This record gives sequence, C-alpha cells and structure tokens, in this order.
Amino acid sequence: MSHLYAFAIGHSRFDSQGNILDCFFPAPLKHPDPELAAMITGHFDAGSHQVDGGWVSAFLESAGQSQAVAAALVEQDGPLTVVRLDEDGPIGSVPEAYLKLHLLSHRLALPNSQNLDNIFAHLPNVAWTSDGPLAADEVNAALVRARAAGRTLEVFSVDKFPKMTNYVIPSGVRIADASRVRLGAHLGEGTTVMHEGQVNFNSGTLGQGMIEGRISQGVTIGAHSDLGGSSSTMGTLSGGGEIVISIGEHCLIGANAGTGIPLGDRCTIAAGVYITAATPVIVLDENGEIVKQVKARELAGASDLLFLQNGSNGRIECRTNRNAIALNEQLHAHN
Amino acid sequence: MSHLYAFAIGHSRFDSQGNILDCFFPAPLKHPDPELAAMITGHFDAGSHQVDGGWVSAFLESAGQSQAVAAALVEQDGPLTVVRLDEDGPIGSVPEAYLKLHLLSHRLALPNSQNLDNIFAHLPNVAWTSDGPLAADEVNAALVRARAAGRTLEVFSVDKFPKMTNYVIPSGVRIADASRVRLGAHLGEGTTVMHEGQVNFNSGTLGQGMIEGRISQGVTIGAHSDLGGSSSTMGTLSGGGEIVISIGEHCLIGANAGTGIPLGDRCTIAAGVYITAATPVIVLDENGEIVKQVKARELAGASDLLFLQNGSNGRIECRTNRNAIALNEQLHAHN
Amino acid sequence: MSHLYAFAIGHSRFDSQGNILDCFFPAPLKHPDPELAAMITGHFDAGSHQVDGGWVSAFLESAGQSQAVAAALVEQDGPLTVVRLDEDGPIGSVPEAYLKLHLLSHRLALPNSQNLDNIFAHLPNVAWTSDGPLAADEVNAALVRARAAGRTLEVFSVDKFPKMTNYVIPSGVRIADASRVRLGAHLGEGTTVMHEGQVNFNSGTLGQGMIEGRISQGVTIGAHSDLGGSSSTMGTLSGGGEIVISIGEHCLIGANAGTGIPLGDRCTIAAGVYITAATPVIVLDENGEIVKQVKARELAGASDLLFLQNGSNGRIECRTNRNAIALNEQLHAHN
Repeated sequence: MSHLYAFAIGHSRFDSQGNILDCFFPAPLKHPDPELAAMITGHFDAGSHQVDGGWVSAFLESAGQSQAVAAALVEQDGPLTVVRLDEDGPIGSVPEAYLKLHLLSHRLALPNSQNLDNIFAHLPNVAWTSDGPLAADEVNAALVRARAAGRTLEVFSVDKFPKMTNYVIPSGVRIADASRVRLGAHLGEGTTVMHEGQVNFNSGTLGQGMIEGRISQGVTIGAHSDLGGSSSTMGTLSGGGEIVISIGEHCLIGANAGTGIPLGDRCTIAAGVYITAATPVIVLDENGEIVKQVKARELAGASDLLFLQNGSNGRIECRTNRNAIALNEQLHAHN
Repeated sequence: MSHLYAFAIGHSRFDSQGNILDCFFPAPLKHPDPELAAMITGHFDAGSHQVDGGWVSAFLESAGQSQAVAAALVEQDGPLTVVRLDEDGPIGSVPEAYLKLHLLSHRLALPNSQNLDNIFAHLPNVAWTSDGPLAADEVNAALVRARAAGRTLEVFSVDKFPKMTNYVIPSGVRIADASRVRLGAHLGEGTTVMHEGQVNFNSGTLGQGMIEGRISQGVTIGAHSDLGGSSSTMGTLSGGGEIVISIGEHCLIGANAGTGIPLGDRCTIAAGVYITAATPVIVLDENGEIVKQVKARELAGASDLLFLQNGSNGRIECRTNRNAIALNEQLHAHN
Repeated sequence: MSHLYAFAIGHSRFDSQGNILDCFFPAPLKHPDPELAAMITGHFDAGSHQVDGGWVSAFLESAGQSQAVAAALVEQDGPLTVVRLDEDGPIGSVPEAYLKLHLLSHRLALPNSQNLDNIFAHLPNVAWTSDGPLAADEVNAALVRARAAGRTLEVFSVDKFPKMTNYVIPSGVRIADASRVRLGAHLGEGTTVMHEGQVNFNSGTLGQGMIEGRISQGVTIGAHSDLGGSSSTMGTLSGGGEIVISIGEHCLIGANAGTGIPLGDRCTIAAGVYITAATPVIVLDENGEIVKQVKARELAGASDLLFLQNGSNGRIECRTNRNAIALNEQLHAHN
C-alpha cells in the first residue's frame, strides 16, 4: 500500500461548452504499489487533468501491465483524463467523482469506505442517450436536430449518475435490467439483480445474493442474503435517519417487505411486513412465549430473528430460536 | 389569451400503410396571443393536417420567435404536421392526442385540465424501437429483416404511449429510468423521478419532489411532497373508483405504502401501510386519545394527518396534531 | 399431431470463441403435421445443428408456407440454426433452450407444459447491448474499444435470458417497458403489461388482463384477472415452496399485495395485503360471521374469496359470498 489513494487514466465526454459530462476509467487503481506510485507522481500532477495522448503513452510504456486496458484508449483522438488522488478527501471535480464511483463498482472500495462529500454538487445533470451523454439543457435541441435528420435519438435517463454497465461489468454477476443499477454500485461475485432489483451508488452486495428489491444509498447486503421482489431497505437520504442500514449474511427480506433497522445474520422478514425503527414489536422466545414489547430499533443488528405479522391479531411479532433469558440479555446489550 | 385553444407544428412518423405512428411538437402553444392566433387561423385550417414544408416556412417567417424551434424541422424531407385546435374538445386524431400530451409535459396544461376523451381509441399501438416507431403488427417482420441484414433491432416498448424524454425534457428534472415516464406526464421544476418512480400521462408533480413510487393517471402531487420507493397512488383507471387522488404539499408516502384517498397538506403514510377508501381507521387526537373510528374516505383531503399501523395490535391509526373537537368538526365537514 | 415435438429454423449469434449466445426462431413449430414432419426428419438430423443456407433452402422450397417467415433468414451470410426435437426431454443445448422459450412466447406451449430441466446450466450469461449480444466476460473489452472508436455502446442487461420483444411480439399485447418481460413469457391476447409489470420465462397470462405486478417463474394468470401495481406472486424459485401458484379468472390482486397460495376464480386480495401459505386467516361467511380460523394454504385454489386486513383490529380476514356450511365443506375438501 502506497501513499497514493487512487489513480486512473480514462476518457471523458463533453458538452458543447466544454464541460465534462462523464469519465470512463477501465483500469482504476487504489493504493498502487510504491514503485508504480512513484512513476505516477513523477509523471502526473495531483488532481484531475486532461492530458495529451503522447504524454500518457510515455507513462504507459513504463507502467506496464496494470494499465494495459487503459492503453487502448490512446487510440482515440484528443486528450485523456488522468486523475491522481493523493488522499481520500471530499469530491472536488467530475473526474474525482467518477473515479470513486469506479472504485466501488470495480470492487476496489467498499460502500461507506470513501469520502463522497460534495458528489451531488459536482456531478452535472446529464441526458444519457443513444448518441452518448448530452447536457440536460442541450438535449431538447438535439431531439429536434435528430428528427430533422431523419434519425432516432433515444433518451434513456436524465440523471447525475449513469448506469453501471456502460462503464464496468463486474465478474460473476447478472443484472436483468441494467437501467436500475447506478455506477458506484458494489456487486459481489455471484450477485443476481433481477428486473425489480435496484442498486444505488455507494451500496450493494458483499458476496453472492439474489436481489429483487431496492438497495438504498449506503446500504450493504451480506453474502447469501436475498432481497425479495420490491422489498425496501431504508436509506439515510430517504427518511431512514442517521442509522446506516446493513443486512447480515443468510438473511431473507420477503417480497414487498422492508426494513428501517439494520439486521444481523440469519434474519427473515416475512413477505409484506415493513419494520421501521419505531415499529412496536412483540418479542417471543423459542417457546413462543412473550418476552417483552420493544421498539424495533432495540433489535437493530441482532441475529437469528424472524419478523412477521400475526394474521389472527395483527401484531408484529419477532420470533427467535433463543430462550427468553438469552434474548433479554441481548436486548439490553443493544439498548 | 385568444380564442384558439392550441397550436403546434411538428413532425410525424408513419407505418408502411401511411398511418401516423407519432408526432413530435418541439414548441407547442396553448392560447397563443391574439396577433399570432390571427396569423395561424389565416394560414392554416382547423384540425390536424400534413402540410408542405414551403407552406409552413411562409408562416414561420411571420410567426417569428415562438416557433423558432419548430423551424428546424423544415430541413427534413416531406410534409410537416400542423394542428390547430380551436377548442378543447374530445380527441379526434393522433396529432390532436400528441398535441395535448405535449402540452402536459411542456407544463402548458395541468393534469385533469384538458378533455382527453377517446385518447385510447385514437392512439395506435406502436413498437418503439431503436429504428423509431413501427406498427405493432409490422415489428415481427422487421425483426426478421434486421437479423437477415446482420443488424440489431432493439424493441424498447409496445404501447400506445411513448416515453416522454424522446419528445421533451422539462427543465430542472432528473429521471433515473426514462422508460417509466410516459409522454403526457407533468413534472414540476425540481422533480426527481428515481428508478422505481413511474409517472403516467395526465398526472404528475406540481412542484419539486422526490418520486420513487407510482403516480397513476389523473393523480397530482403537490410541491415538496415525496413518494417513497414503490409507493402507490390509486388511479381511476385501476380500481380507485370515482375519487380522483391528489396529494397536497409537504406530504410523505412511505416506501411500499399507498393511498386510495386524496390527502391534504403535511400528511404522512408510514412505510408499508396501504390506506384504501374502505379501510377502517382509528382516529387519535393530539393527546393520543381515540376520537372515533371512521372509514378512510371520511378523511379524504384532510391535512396534518399521520397514518400508521400499530404493531402491538394491528390497528390502522390516524394521528394528528389537532385536538379532538377540532378533529371531529373536520370529519363532519368532510362527510 | 405428429411424433415430432418441435422444429425451427433460425439464426444464432456467437462470441469470439464461437460459443452460441442466442437463437432467433421466427416461425417455430410444435407437433408439425405428419407430412411436414416426414420432410423434416428426412432432411435434418435430430438435435440442434448449424446448417448451410443452401441445405436449408432446399428444405424450405418443399416446406412451403409454414416456414415462409424463416426463409428470409437465408439472405444473411453464414449458416442457420436448425433444431429438430423428437421429444420433450431435458434441455441439452442453447438452441433447444431458445426453441422452448420461443414456443412459450409464440403461444404454442403453456407455462409448466414443457420439460425445462437444465435450462440454467445451458444458457450462457450474456451482455445484451446495442451491438447485439456479447459474452459477459468479453463486454468490458468491448466498452474500451467502443470508447476508443468514439462510439456509444449501450449495455441493456447482463443475463441468461433476453427480453422477449427482441424475438417475438405476440398479437394483441402492450408492454410498456419491454425490459421487464423475458423471452419465454406467455402473454395472452389482450394482455397489457404496465411499466411496473414483470413476466418471467415459463409464466404469464392465459387470456386478457392488466398486469402491473410480478408474475414469477411457473405462475399463470387466468383471463380477465388483474395484477395491481407491484403486486407479487410467489414463485417456486423464490421461496414459494412446492406449491405452483396460479390465479384463476376474474381475480384482482391489489396494488402492493401478494399471494403465496394459488387462487380460484373471482378472488380479490385488497391492496397492501400479503397472503403467504402460513398466514392465519379468519374466515367469515356471507353474513360476516366467523366460520373458523385457518392457515391460508387451506384456502388454496378456492373461488369467490375476498382477502383483506381489518384496519380496526389487524386481522387478516377472508370474506365470501357463500354461507357457513358450504364454506366449511369446501375447506374440508381442500384439506
């Protein structure tokens, strides 16, 4: 591990005023080894820059294999985008934002492990089209020009974040509808995101899993856990408050269910049941005896819990495979 | 305001039989000023027509700035589509339908403010493809031709309504997955439609808001209100009955929640709770005392309400910041 | 009906190693008549093969009208894909998988009527792009090449199953967002799949219907039934256990509702209510009197039931138009 936080060579696209709309970094690096880091700092200034292809080529010859993928970009006309981040500070430019999003989707950085302050302020709003990105305020004119020329211009999205699969497809994943996974999603090997699944930036899966629900910004899902169809994980941006939601391993969030509290391992929320931090929950022990009534937030992070709604009386119940004493101790530990 | 209801110059695409598949109106007008209206009625007949480019150009020279955007369309080969609607009657043709849908998405007409009778009867079912629109019954043959020619033909949608962003991108909006917003959606400045958001024609937001749920046909959402992930607003087409649903300002419909009644301002429905018109609701006053039990429809349109399901007994409760007397008066006023 | 199970002539695309990525069969046949079957078995070997265009043309001249659509494929360069399935055995190759998926979407085979064993093992994971299918492990390099060439490469999906509409658009359907319907979906004439609808392979509608929810693998929906927005049908792949879910005719599954049991005809599940097999349900007769409490699985397949959650006490209730004795008899019949 070197003193450099991250480095990448890539290609950017621009609007008619010369503003950067996106950056593509096919081989981003985090903490490059000291030898490579020395080459980088000797050749490129800190920060992000548009750099002549010849200057990049000179570096690539010495950098060798780690940047072989990026080397192909030199073939295109015009300058390349180089980002050298000496430390993980707040986002200061569009290329810096794209580099950190790439690190997440390349599985080089885990969600919540990077400083993403100011990312919304720096990312421009872009129309993502079949002709590539256009500034949001230039796309209406482009629609007219395409019609006048007898061409079809398809506008897929108008957003600050592009979809991940136009930048990187991590190994061992399936994504049924790629328009629902933003660049900056972290998808573990063996993850399947079905049509109803959705993964925001700075969130995702840590291992394999079947994702048919929504992973909000900042939320992580442990290995071997499944999100049922249209299930919901509350994000800090969308009313979840200060608690960052994480789901442990071997969990199942049922279809149309949801959680506003983090869960430990081997937890299940039955289909259709939504647990918010304030939900009153009746806790039952391994014999089905009532232990106590708590707010769901007191169960945050605990393992081996089954949440369901009792259809005979409407109560939200939490069942477990532990006895009443062990359960009570854990509840107090979590308070 | 003039006697003319609306006017637009645009471009249409056709199937192999010469039937109109779509119309693009980059600069539609509602109630053009009297001087311009006089020019329009002096130059074009009422109704919708395919008009020679030269005849349109002669008009454009005199019409000036209001149609500068449409002027670029004259560059393309073939006739242009001109619609002159003297009044807001039932839909009588494909161009009339497209003009009224454009007026909504250009923020020139509010949802439920126009006569849209017969719109389903007039709009053809279209395959929206990477080659542009094709008649639904001609697309299978096009798939064979594309394969035989070694080309990729992508079919995005088979529907009477196209997606909005291929016709107009209103200022100040973000739409994460544009395939979920139909032409005819009305999106206020500052609206973000996330991946799970969906906006039908003749519905939408009146100001800024975060839309992660579904806005059904006819439904409007006031400024500063948020629809949580996969939340539902019941439409008149889909079982909501005769009540047109509207959500006031500063409301929050939680994730996976839903409403079959209109809401006033500053209302919240907790995540996962679905209120239909027939739902029995226990109304509590500012002190948490039970005021009465009502059907949810009796609370239609009221402000400052919080709906939740009590996890300890399964009751749907409506809490408020008002005292019992004030609340009772309002309930009677709504009956 | 002949001894041949199925036959088709089509076109395949390949990765750089020569592995088949997809097959397109514009005119698949199930149980061709004996005369045609004799021609097929006389001309082609059993199984799936890449066949020279000249050899296919010789067959097409004698086969006549049934393969007129496929004939156009001969125009393209290279061999064609021919599949002759003598019986409906387990899937043994990519073309066999695609043929059976085509039979479903062409309405020649009903869901659950074919042997689909091993389909996941045989279908490769494919990146579905604006340049056509690419092997999932070759798409990152293609993204670099596209950038270097100044082109836009759009990656729509990374999945074993492609979307249906790039292969066949059945008559009389609307599909608002085609990315949510897999090849192998069976959509009856008159089906509308709205933006939030989703249809997996080997599942679908048997007649007309409005689908705004998710039809899981193996699930069928009878004619004149509607799935409300984001409603859920539990699949055998996703926790529904061994019971294959089917919904009868004239049913309504409300918005954000769901079912883990099959339903007969004329059933309704109220918006927001999720019935799993284990849900305790209070059964009420035509007079609103309690008949008994059962697990929902005991009501599997019954008709004329209305499921709702009573907002005044949280109970899941099942109401019916039948009297207590008739209802009791039916419950016992289902046990």
